[in-house]
Amino acid sequence: MSSPTIALNNGKKMPLVGFGLWKVNNDTCADQVYNAIKTGYRLFDGACDYGNEQEAGEGVARAIKDGLVKREDLFIVSKLWNSFHDKERVKPIAKKQLADWGVDYFDLFIIHFPIALKYVDPSVRYPPGFKDENNKLSLSKAPLEETYHAMEELYEEGLIKSIGISNYNGALVLDVERYAKILPQTLQIEHHPYLVQNDLLELCKSRNIVVTAYSSFGPQSFLELNMQKAQDTPLLFDHSTVKTIADKHSKTPAQVLLRWATQRGIAVIPKSNNQGRLAQNLDVCSFDLADSEIKQISDLDQNLRFNNPLNYGVDVPIFA
Amino acid sequence: MSSPTIALNNGKKMPLVGFGLWKVNNDTCADQVYNAIKTGYRLFDGACDYGNEQEAGEGVARAIKDGLVKREDLFIVSKLWNSFHDKERVKPIAKKQLADWGVDYFDLFIIHFPIALKYVDPSVRYPPGFKDENNKLSLSKAPLEETYHAMEELYEEGLIKSIGISNYNGALVLDVERYAKILPQTLQIEHHPYLVQNDLLELCKSRNIVVTAYSSFGPQSFLELNMQKAQDTPLLFDHSTVKTIADKHSKTPAQVLLRWATQRGIAVIPKSNNQGRLAQNLDVCSFDLADSEIKQISDLDQNLRFNNPLNYGVDVPIFA
Repeated sequence: MSSPTIALNNGKKMPLVGFGLWKVNNDTCADQVYNAIKTGYRLFDGACDYGNEQEAGEGVARAIKDGLVKREDLFIVSKLWNSFHDKERVKPIAKKQLADWGVDYFDLFIIHFPIALKYVDPSVRYPPGFKDENNKLSLSKAPLEETYHAMEELYEEGLIKSIGISNYNGALVLDVERYAKILPQTLQIEHHPYLVQNDLLELCKSRNIVVTAYSSFGPQSFLELNMQKAQDTPLLFDHSTVKTIADKHSKTPAQVLLRWATQRGIAVIPKSNNQGRLAQNLDVCSFDLADSEIKQISDLDQNLRFNNPLNYGVDVPIFA
Repeated sequence: MSSPTIALNNGKKMPLVGFGLWKVNNDTCADQVYNAIKTGYRLFDGACDYGNEQEAGEGVARAIKDGLVKREDLFIVSKLWNSFHDKERVKPIAKKQLADWGVDYFDLFIIHFPIALKYVDPSVRYPPGFKDENNKLSLSKAPLEETYHAMEELYEEGLIKSIGISNYNGALVLDVERYAKILPQTLQIEHHPYLVQNDLLELCKSRNIVVTAYSSFGPQSFLELNMQKAQDTPLLFDHSTVKTIADKHSKTPAQVLLRWATQRGIAVIPKSNNQGRLAQNLDVCSFDLADSEIKQISDLDQNLRFNNPLNYGVDVPIFA
């Protein structure tokens, strides 16, 4: 089994379905990546902030050593953390992250958040999270444009093959478009039936920027973080609309949620610890939802966002 | 009667209640401004886009000539339109707008929208609206930072005494903070009980940026534009929560809505063609709502925005 690919605006091809490394435990990460490759996954969505890039790289290295894949078969994604937005920090940290993965380029490197924090030396704390070396939230003065141009330099040097942005809203995307020499290839956002963001999707479509959805299952991803808002929201897996459509297609609710995205050209990056679900999540382009079913699911929209820094007590209201 | 003032972060003082010039007809504008001054208004919130700056200036000139006020008693606000975001366009258009008003400085000059459009020569069409000289929507490549620095130059030259931004969301305000040499003094946003935007208000408070509310009466302002969304929304003037509180204080619903804002330090800029209401709108700091009443009104929040370019068929999704 494998995922179909989607063409990016620079001619590169990206798998529509990948494996997301957020909250993948360090002790199982290498095996999970190895297994995912064996199952057919080719895209791995990592980040400095996930704290498991070395382990993910071990899984990749083992899969390559065992002849399961070659590097060029894989699409390795990583992200620039907030603490490294100052222009002189971007290349050194990208090189450290490449070294952690044991690769010499990323297929896609993403500005993780439109948030610039004060630099934290990796020898002090890595990944740094939202706090500075004195354990306080400290903003950096690096404008988003400065960071973006540093990303463009990585691109021009070949260290990254595509540029991504994440957690940017429409106004920020419109501003990137003004200052970019190289338009971003992808935008990664929280996207599920409770947070559809049609206007933002339309904007990206009109600019030929591919959207990757994270937290495709909605509140599910945030339960393990004990987020009250997620606990108070009915799970999409249990939602009658989703279940009815799943039953009709003899698929799982998870597969329906992923297909709802991929069928509209939105890439997805689920994760699973379970071999059965790992395979099911990859198998989400082999059936089609009816337009009416897509609409029924889209109609669940509540503009309900979970992954807001404010929900973690981080006072940086990027979604205000 | 007069309005109390609020201190801006540069030490200037701004009236909390002003007269908004949006949709004020050209043929009555001069008289309305004159009358408003006579009634006690000192702040006038104008804009290139309102198409009535000359007439507003006539009203001001007459009031000064008649000895009602001196220039320094007034707080004249204008706005930079989208078509003049390119850095070389900012000063010439500001000077034209000053000439239209017949004044040699603005107390506050505001970036009207985080939208950069292609330049339109004022001799071709003025105000230009959202279309270029060929009647198409054409974006400019001027990043918001470029425009902001041009505003700072006006400030340094003394042509404008304070800098404002408008229709900026949290992420954009955070980015301004990164690149600004001079922090903005004010943010003007749509703000009413159906669109409370607490997180954005908190952000501005923490940065000492004063918020000015426009469309304080909610859907009311958009009825005359035949906006379907406004027609489909119950008027705040008729809302039982607002009416009950108004009755209790022997005030009008309009006064309660304005007080709900001013009591929290948010400036307001209502307009009225009616002498009685003109006076009532100015008299909105002489009574206090209970905290519980403020909360009741804030609880009407529906995150319902009317003044979105998409609602006018302008495909620039700044609020996506």
